Amino acid sequence: PDDEIRDRAVARHTQLTKPVGSLGRLEELGAWVSACQGVCPPKPFERPRVVVFAGDHGIATQGVSAYPSEVTAQMVANFLAGGAAVNVLATAAGATVRVVDVAVAGETSPTVSKFKVRNGSGLIDREDALTAAETAAAVKAGRDIADEEIDGGADVLVAGDMGIGNTTPSAVLIAALTGSEPVAVVGRGTGIDDQGWMRKTAAIRDALRRARKVGADPVALLRTAGGADLAAMAGFLAQAAARRTPVVLDGVVVGAAAMVAEELAPGAREWWVAGHRSVEPAHAIVLDHLDLKPILDFGMRLGEGSGALTALPVLSAATRILAEMATFADAGIAGP
Amino acid sequence: PDDEIRDRAVARHTQLTKPVGSLGRLEELGAWVSACQGVCPPKPFERPRVVVFAGDHGIATQGVSAYPSEVTAQMVANFLAGGAAVNVLATAAGATVRVVDVAVAGETSPTVSKFKVRNGSGLIDREDALTAAETAAAVKAGRDIADEEIDGGADVLVAGDMGIGNTTPSAVLIAALTGSEPVAVVGRGTGIDDQGWMRKTAAIRDALRRARKVGADPVALLRTAGGADLAAMAGFLAQAAARRTPVVLDGVVVGAAAMVAEELAPGAREWWVAGHRSVEPAHAIVLDHLDLKPILDFGMRLGEGSGALTALPVLSAATRILAEMATFADAGIAGP
Repeated sequence: PDDEIRDRAVARHTQLTKPVGSLGRLEELGAWVSACQGVCPPKPFERPRVVVFAGDHGIATQGVSAYPSEVTAQMVANFLAGGAAVNVLATAAGATVRVVDVAVAGETSPTVSKFKVRNGSGLIDREDALTAAETAAAVKAGRDIADEEIDGGADVLVAGDMGIGNTTPSAVLIAALTGSEPVAVVGRGTGIDDQGWMRKTAAIRDALRRARKVGADPVALLRTAGGADLAAMAGFLAQAAARRTPVVLDGVVVGAAAMVAEELAPGAREWWVAGHRSVEPAHAIVLDHLDLKPILDFGMRLGEGSGALTALPVLSAATRILAEMATFADAGIAGP
Repeated sequence: PDDEIRDRAVARHTQLTKPVGSLGRLEELGAWVSACQGVCPPKPFERPRVVVFAGDHGIATQGVSAYPSEVTAQMVANFLAGGAAVNVLATAAGATVRVVDVAVAGETSPTVSKFKVRNGSGLIDREDALTAAETAAAVKAGRDIADEEIDGGADVLVAGDMGIGNTTPSAVLIAALTGSEPVAVVGRGTGIDDQGWMRKTAAIRDALRRARKVGADPVALLRTAGGADLAAMAGFLAQAAARRTPVVLDGVVVGAAAMVAEELAPGAREWWVAGHRSVEPAHAIVLDHLDLKPILDFGMRLGEGSGALTALPVLSAATRILAEMATFADAGIAGP
């Protein structure tokens, strides 16, 4: 983001017909959008776009989730039919939805499987999630998708996740990158019971043992303990930053991918805002690590980009304030 | 709100294609809207409406604000021209704006002065804000305006405030109703310096001495230490509740009026949700007293309904989730 433009946006805020600083965080967010766009006043968003990255995880067979892997493909169909939370929240926020099957276990519609890398990622407590070639293909898929969307006119992006078991590799990535212990990053995901929590903690512990050996290499980390969906999201987030496009981050899964993206492209986090703080304990670690302050703190834990989309209208409003409010001079009012 | 319908909405949430409880506070808000409407699923809002109550305060002549009273009428003109924060945020949230001059010091457009009670309310540190007749007229104006809007189809309401000096009587009302001390309720308002802060604290202290004598009578309190705008807002909020219409509350000024409205119509608060928590210290006291949890905590302090309007899209999204998401049965997915 352009610091000179940000300063100009901050200065413009003092000229708008309101007491200086009286819109608080809304002013900060508007100035950030202005800096991302490199123009002041900023342009209201015209094409917010959500990309949901769907993928399964072998670890789901180990009883770490309240749902079976079959639900991932069923939810992809639900996204395409428009019945999921992401569809409703995107429509409400003026965004459109794209679904990408990166590694769903099983067949999905050909409209979404162009970037498919494999059927489900590996059992990370004992084997690599991906081969080196698959990892590279998944990261590239994410980068290509970001390029396609930005070339298609998207002016603000959201990454969403769908994949039974995906909070387990996410927790492992977050622990590996922050030196956290399994119990600090394990959460209830879709809603597991105490037995499931113990199995999940053990799976994280075993996968983390493997992940720590490659913790300094983000691509190796994705290969060892991530998954194709996480790799694609990391590529997507890194490329959005390279293309100077603002992103609203979602919860713990996107957060794990964002932490890897920040390793791939240091400084990428400057192009992101945190939509919300989820209830997953590891998400607070992500926000702290990336130094991002959430817009909402709503106790959400769905994924799909749902938290980011709930917050998106707030970011849009912040942009419109800078773009559309009258100045003291316009309104003929004596300024402060 | 209808508790049986609320239970039905909570039950419906468990049937939607997402893990139980995974949308957190968004589920709570949707169930509340359903209960207010008395129907499940709830109807997405079609006519959100903001009414900005403008009024001046004699106390502004005592140096308690960073701006002179003339700014109130200038801002009313700005609202009518569409250049203020309330206009931009209302448009962004799909709401329309109505401006009402209840007690602006000076002339305003005839389109907004139909309910005008007087030119500025009294100097509350030494005299009553209003006569008994003016108080009754202002409360009735608020009630009539709520009726007009609801009869006109408004399905969610926001009250906004505009009036130089209005955080001073608001602080007095809040202190009188909660037994708080002046230093606990005084804030920086539009942005006063330390000298202004001391003058404001002294004004609150003197007005509070007068207000405490009538603290048990909400109408007398509005007369003694409130103002016509605050009285109208209290009437508006009480009547919206009587008409079973949900309201998104704004900051400290609307909050003060809401506390009085709850005294006028006990239980009215069940029909309100708090849009945000402002930086005014007295606003936290209001939220605590009314037992309301803010949607946003954004460091805002503008008034005009700005915080409520920034939060309104979140409430709208919560409503649409319940109304528009597919159920597990619809989507052919095995539920939890």
